[in-house]
Amino acid sequence: MTKINRALKDIEKLIKSTHSPQVLGDIGLFGGFYIPNLSRYKEPVLVFSTDGVGQKTVIANLTNKFGTIGQDLVNHCANDILVCGAKPVVFLDYFACDNFQSRIFKEIIKGIISACKKIQVSRVSLIGGETAVMPKAYKKNQFDLVGFMMGIAERSQIIDGSKIKPGDKILGLASSGLHTNGYTVVLKTLFKRSQKSSLKRYFKELGCSLASELLKIHRCYVNQILNIVDDFSGISGMAHITGGGIAGNLIRILPTNCQVRIRLSCWEIPSIFKLISEKGKISQKEMFKTFNMGIGLILVVPADKERFFTKELTLAGEKVWTIGEIRQGKRKVVIR
Amino acid sequence: MTKINRALKDIEKLIKSTHSPQVLGDIGLFGGFYIPNLSRYKEPVLVFSTDGVGQKTVIANLTNKFGTIGQDLVNHCANDILVCGAKPVVFLDYFACDNFQSRIFKEIIKGIISACKKIQVSRVSLIGGETAVMPKAYKKNQFDLVGFMMGIAERSQIIDGSKIKPGDKILGLASSGLHTNGYTVVLKTLFKRSQKSSLKRYFKELGCSLASELLKIHRCYVNQILNIVDDFSGISGMAHITGGGIAGNLIRILPTNCQVRIRLSCWEIPSIFKLISEKGKISQKEMFKTFNMGIGLILVVPADKERFFTKELTLAGEKVWTIGEIRQGKRKVVIR
Repeated sequence: MTKINRALKDIEKLIKSTHSPQVLGDIGLFGGFYIPNLSRYKEPVLVFSTDGVGQKTVIANLTNKFGTIGQDLVNHCANDILVCGAKPVVFLDYFACDNFQSRIFKEIIKGIISACKKIQVSRVSLIGGETAVMPKAYKKNQFDLVGFMMGIAERSQIIDGSKIKPGDKILGLASSGLHTNGYTVVLKTLFKRSQKSSLKRYFKELGCSLASELLKIHRCYVNQILNIVDDFSGISGMAHITGGGIAGNLIRILPTNCQVRIRLSCWEIPSIFKLISEKGKISQKEMFKTFNMGIGLILVVPADKERFFTKELTLAGEKVWTIGEIRQGKRKVVIR
Repeated sequence: MTKINRALKDIEKLIKSTHSPQVLGDIGLFGGFYIPNLSRYKEPVLVFSTDGVGQKTVIANLTNKFGTIGQDLVNHCANDILVCGAKPVVFLDYFACDNFQSRIFKEIIKGIISACKKIQVSRVSLIGGETAVMPKAYKKNQFDLVGFMMGIAERSQIIDGSKIKPGDKILGLASSGLHTNGYTVVLKTLFKRSQKSSLKRYFKELGCSLASELLKIHRCYVNQILNIVDDFSGISGMAHITGGGIAGNLIRILPTNCQVRIRLSCWEIPSIFKLISEKGKISQKEMFKTFNMGIGLILVVPADKERFFTKELTLAGEKVWTIGEIRQGKRKVVIR
């Protein structure tokens, strides 16, 4: 039995504990089997997304903490599925490294399992995965981590932005920090010299060490949103703010006759972004192109739904601000 | 627009050309949308698989040829879906590298597209993907390539080995070479010193250069098998021979009371495996644990179906041998 198979055997029960009754068959076959429960959908649509956690893996390595990176991965994918108007149900992972270390692998998979289980409005089954050892491709002790997620949507509830109209309000939900984007910039700006020691340093403005800040788990918004509106009703559009920032992601769902105005004064940009901006001498404009700047998810809602969503999301424990609105005009996102 | 987005824009039409009418919406949304055509299934089961191409990426790099590696990826995943008794319908890719080069990326994606289109018994739509640049994780000019595939199966036709019984025959279908396994061993044994020059060398026994041999495309068996038996009828078991070799993969579907006897004399082991074995001083036993040794796919069929499948597969252009049989006994695979 190989080291990889042994590690998988050790956590087989945990993996199986994510399985909904929809999962068929055993771990170890050539594929994972899933019987989708489609009876409650009129026109079911399968929604697929794949993502990695980028160079957040490097921070996990430098701090030797691997318990959270798997959660980042699941949450990133789950938010992508959510903003399409779908509920996540199936997850697969890919882990590749320069040399296989059981402890690291198991910590990561346990994080994946834990995040799958935390999504309570919909059961997410970890149904398969692949592990590769590629010493010629990966640097010493480095690894990559990729997730594949499938969700199910009702066709009439799909969110692709087509319902967005002038007058709609833009609600921004607080991120928990960098989420999984901009780590390449962070590694260039905050770690120019001695890497590990910089990470241990306590920053007063962050209220924690740099390591703690940079390993904060990518916030998952699935439970909160679906507990409020199980069928996505009243939502014109949603955007997961990842690479490309607010503008780069919001534009993906913006109809041609709609312009977004984001008002910078509406929320407080978290200290970590100010720190990166200062240390890296990066203009605010550039920062907005890469980072989420404190906004992890955007909801576009009709003006008469603004108060409802703000109140309900606040009750659910979210920090939420109205950060702008949709106007008639040439398709673009203006941040001021 | 980033380099990645520009490259994607350049091949957007090609990507869309893989889309069946089941695909909804545009490229660039947060997820890919797919309406599965389930009406012809009594109890549809979704089948998922994820795989990489391992260090075959390194050979692509050394030879500066990237047109085939994407095909390897799709074919690897498609065979995994096939051996579960399912038809592949959806594909997503993940490409990560140390620095993004448009030409390489586009060649790879074009390979993926070409392989998706070659699967004619079932339309495979390239519905999503992710591209990451991770210079701290990947070595200079190195990359990784991961695929995620979904197929659909009729529940009663799922192949999980439970139909295998003593007396069944083992049919081996020829591989096209290493497929995507054992490249780590190859890199250790055949490239100890000067890498690029070894690759250009012509080997009489291979009938081609080492580079040509090592880049041979992972054979896809989907069309051939499904053209013969659209509903997998008459097949007791199937195994895709990847990492772990014949024994490691056949054991995955072997019932507890069944033993496999493989007779080495039944087929000619291709020269590339002999070359690796000689140069690397690797025993045949060890070789069988890593490599496919000339057998890319195994069909387990009742004895009275042996002639039918052999004839039909031969007519379809496959090299096929009866390489063993199932006997009653303790669950194991014996190769002699």
